[in-house]
Amino acid sequence: MIPSKYTDLLKSKALAHVATVGPDGAPQSNPVWFDWDGEHVLFSQTKTRQKYKNVQRDPHVALSIVDPANPFRYLEIRGTVSKIEEDPDKHFINAMAKKYTGQAVYQGNQPGDERVVVYVTPEHTTHMG
Amino acid sequence: MIPSKYTDLLKSKALAHVATVGPDGAPQSNPVWFDWDGEHVLFSQTKTRQKYKNVQRDPHVALSIVDPANPFRYLEIRGTVSKIEEDPDKHFINAMAKKYTGQAVYQGNQPGDERVVVYVTPEHTTHMG
Repeated sequence: MIPSKYTDLLKSKALAHVATVGPDGAPQSNPVWFDWDGEHVLFSQTKTRQKYKNVQRDPHVALSIVDPANPFRYLEIRGTVSKIEEDPDKHFINAMAKKYTGQAVYQGNQPGDERVVVYVTPEHTTHMG
Repeated sequence: MIPSKYTDLLKSKALAHVATVGPDGAPQSNPVWFDWDGEHVLFSQTKTRQKYKNVQRDPHVALSIVDPANPFRYLEIRGTVSKIEEDPDKHFINAMAKKYTGQAVYQGNQPGDERVVVYVTPEHTTHMG
């Protein structure tokens, strides 16, 4: 599904800009840390965030990822949220902190944060460069 | 409308990831060069691109912009496409090439490209960092 020419970006430290559709039908976008398990793009979310509510109502998402080493090169992945898993022990968010910051524990945890792991199954890609 | 703490990003060379809603209601996202005229976010588009068709059908867009100097800092601008102008002489795309690459003429022009300038009026922002 992902063109082999772009799979390096899936293991890079690039941010993914995740677009979802809000309750009014308008798009929303923000950058996230992400992982790739060979089949899905994974990102962390707290349950209080609008994006979490959005993907429960409308599972369609788009992620755009620019090559940190080449701003003319990017991959867009359009797909569907196919699974949402609880992350009660913060394993996933801590793994993302490790990937992106080198620190073993995510520094942004707030008391009471309920985190989930959002799995996106790719259905279509666009790319440049 | 834009928090003063984040206006520096509007004049930076950061890319904006523009989310639009496609014909099937699903979001689409890709990075663009952008400008800020004090009231609108401007970006260039060719008439053949899906994004151009999307914003004519549904003018709602979201742009997320990460600080090139600090990956923990970003601004999201949600708004509406309020104007689309022709760019027959490529003034705007060339100005964007100058801003982002230093070159006076955009190197990606293709024969027959019909370019427009898309104006986005901000209506809501989110931010971090």
